[in-house]
Amino acid sequence: MSDAVRSPGAREERLVVTYLLSGGEAEARARAKDICFEQTVEFPEDLVPTGFIRDEVIGRVESMTRAGPERFRAEISFPVDSTARELLQLMNVVFGNISIKPGIRVERMSLPPTLLRSFRGPRFGRDGLRACMKVSRRPLICTALKPMGLSAVELAEQTRQFALGGIDLIKDDHGLTDQPYAPFVERLARCSAAVAEANAGTGRRCVYVPNVTGRSDDLLGRAHEARRRGAGALLVSPFLTGFDAMRQLADDDGLALPILAHPAFGGSYVTSETAGISHGALYGQLMRLAGADASIYPNFGGRFSFTREECEAIAAATAEPMGPIAPIFPAPGGGMTVERAADMLEVYGREFVLLIGAGLHRRGPDLARNARFFVDMLESM
Amino acid sequence: MSDAVRSPGAREERLVVTYLLSGGEAEARARAKDICFEQTVEFPEDLVPTGFIRDEVIGRVESMTRAGPERFRAEISFPVDSTARELLQLMNVVFGNISIKPGIRVERMSLPPTLLRSFRGPRFGRDGLRACMKVSRRPLICTALKPMGLSAVELAEQTRQFALGGIDLIKDDHGLTDQPYAPFVERLARCSAAVAEANAGTGRRCVYVPNVTGRSDDLLGRAHEARRRGAGALLVSPFLTGFDAMRQLADDDGLALPILAHPAFGGSYVTSETAGISHGALYGQLMRLAGADASIYPNFGGRFSFTREECEAIAAATAEPMGPIAPIFPAPGGGMTVERAADMLEVYGREFVLLIGAGLHRRGPDLARNARFFVDMLESM
Repeated sequence: MSDAVRSPGAREERLVVTYLLSGGEAEARARAKDICFEQTVEFPEDLVPTGFIRDEVIGRVESMTRAGPERFRAEISFPVDSTARELLQLMNVVFGNISIKPGIRVERMSLPPTLLRSFRGPRFGRDGLRACMKVSRRPLICTALKPMGLSAVELAEQTRQFALGGIDLIKDDHGLTDQPYAPFVERLARCSAAVAEANAGTGRRCVYVPNVTGRSDDLLGRAHEARRRGAGALLVSPFLTGFDAMRQLADDDGLALPILAHPAFGGSYVTSETAGISHGALYGQLMRLAGADASIYPNFGGRFSFTREECEAIAAATAEPMGPIAPIFPAPGGGMTVERAADMLEVYGREFVLLIGAGLHRRGPDLARNARFFVDMLESM
Repeated sequence: MSDAVRSPGAREERLVVTYLLSGGEAEARARAKDICFEQTVEFPEDLVPTGFIRDEVIGRVESMTRAGPERFRAEISFPVDSTARELLQLMNVVFGNISIKPGIRVERMSLPPTLLRSFRGPRFGRDGLRACMKVSRRPLICTALKPMGLSAVELAEQTRQFALGGIDLIKDDHGLTDQPYAPFVERLARCSAAVAEANAGTGRRCVYVPNVTGRSDDLLGRAHEARRRGAGALLVSPFLTGFDAMRQLADDDGLALPILAHPAFGGSYVTSETAGISHGALYGQLMRLAGADASIYPNFGGRFSFTREECEAIAAATAEPMGPIAPIFPAPGGGMTVERAADMLEVYGREFVLLIGAGLHRRGPDLARNARFFVDMLESM
């Protein structure tokens, strides 16, 4: 091992994670100390070798402040080298083993420039996605093809109507993968063709967004097939595929497609107020670092239970300074109705992807007309 | 769409998921109904097309019984076709969107033979791993190389000593990936050589188990490099890599190495009693289906908070009938000491992998001697 590696890290060579810890001060301090060891050496304090490992590798409590009754906020730093500059090992340092312990919640990550430079983040980000869609001012509008059980022909007809109606991003519902009802390749071919046909008529730049979440050995295959067939973006559920698989898709220069990240299977990280990961860190910081251009999550007031404050925290995290990593769009959805769009503009401004699903089916069977009504309404706001 | 696909599925063509639902009867019934829609069509009831989709695709509440005060147990069935016979989409049907809703906990999955046949599960399982290690009666013994910050030379010396002492599986600590302290390839080469050298002297079959959790585009590369260098098994953290990546490694005929699954980053699924996934379903059923030969989790009484009953549920799920999917080993660890081995034999019988880490460092610097003491003790029990 070279001396350079063993030399004491400069201040900027540590990342800082803010944790919310349950308990009185003594208990919270014990939790903070436990995190320092568990997330690095995973070794009892008295057995840790003195010198470099004890001085540098172990986590370090940088600050500790009261955050409420029976609650403390601790900032704990870790050496950048402990992450191996890999996304998964970074996640492991932040919340690996201690995810299994109660009373510890990740509130946010502060990553130094030297670490941020190891990640490209989103390929498009807010500006890039707006340029792709040629939508400069209003929120982007996304809908989902559903319900599961329709044939590829039926889904393609939905796609065509939504594209005629001016919906920007027409994505597969996240549960559509390769079911016999509408197999991936057939659905991809028909829906891409439907969008292309509609765009040729309208002059718009609507895109079809196939869900490529599927077999690990076929993820790249589906993504590249999507590109070949003319898909305009990809839908990925990183809690299922793994976050680094999404990062790999984002970094693939031969693919170069925007990515919409779906939160399926990952809700357990946010359902407890005293454990897991904060909404901002999970749906904002982590999704962004892992290459999503838009991060889908359930909006406040819909059929899920996120609060307005939690959604505001997500939106803030998608755009806060993060070195070279571009801002991405929050994409609130879940039980959205036409009427609630005004609420959303108030909270998110115009910098979001508005996800509307069943709401577009409520006004009768003419989906193109329903979509146009909604797009017009949003453009007039 | 062919008539065959549209025809009503026979009874065995549905999988059944048992959920624990919070609330009084009316609330629990509402949750059950919500699951039926949210996990399949994700569409309001009144908009779901009649016929095939309404009759077959939507989840179906098969039974509902009281499980305690303010708690109900619901068995809900879904069509096998909704899973596309893919692991990730199966996980998505079982707990995709509803992971984000409070008051819903997955207790177990009952998968019909037609679905189980789509998965190979563990390549080795209990019998296969015992055959690899040539250990027929006692629990297998596994330890972890640590602490992070040691060089590859130092870790290889630990490996040599543990192998001389007779530890069966000598794994990387799950936090060791490709840090500059001990880069992956150097560590792999040195530790594999150390085990081979020790085995040549002892005639034993100890194996080195490198952690291949890392970049998605390098997971297969690291795994195959591990095989070429003589590693005897692989350590994977599927909550980080994604579960299907582990499945892919298990199914790789050119690799054919046993897999130890690590629970890092996945604790949030079990930290709430009213949400997430049960210990048995997560560490038992899911790990097994996804190809792990041994499932690591924190033992009761250690430095984590699992109860004895939760650990018993995991052990039961690793061996219960599951069609063609072989039983796997529970691998309890986390703060294990030499003295607690008797407790474990009582709970797990001899069918487990005993994971002991720092406990082997407690008896002085001669790790080979410490290991031998422990192996001898276990063999005499």
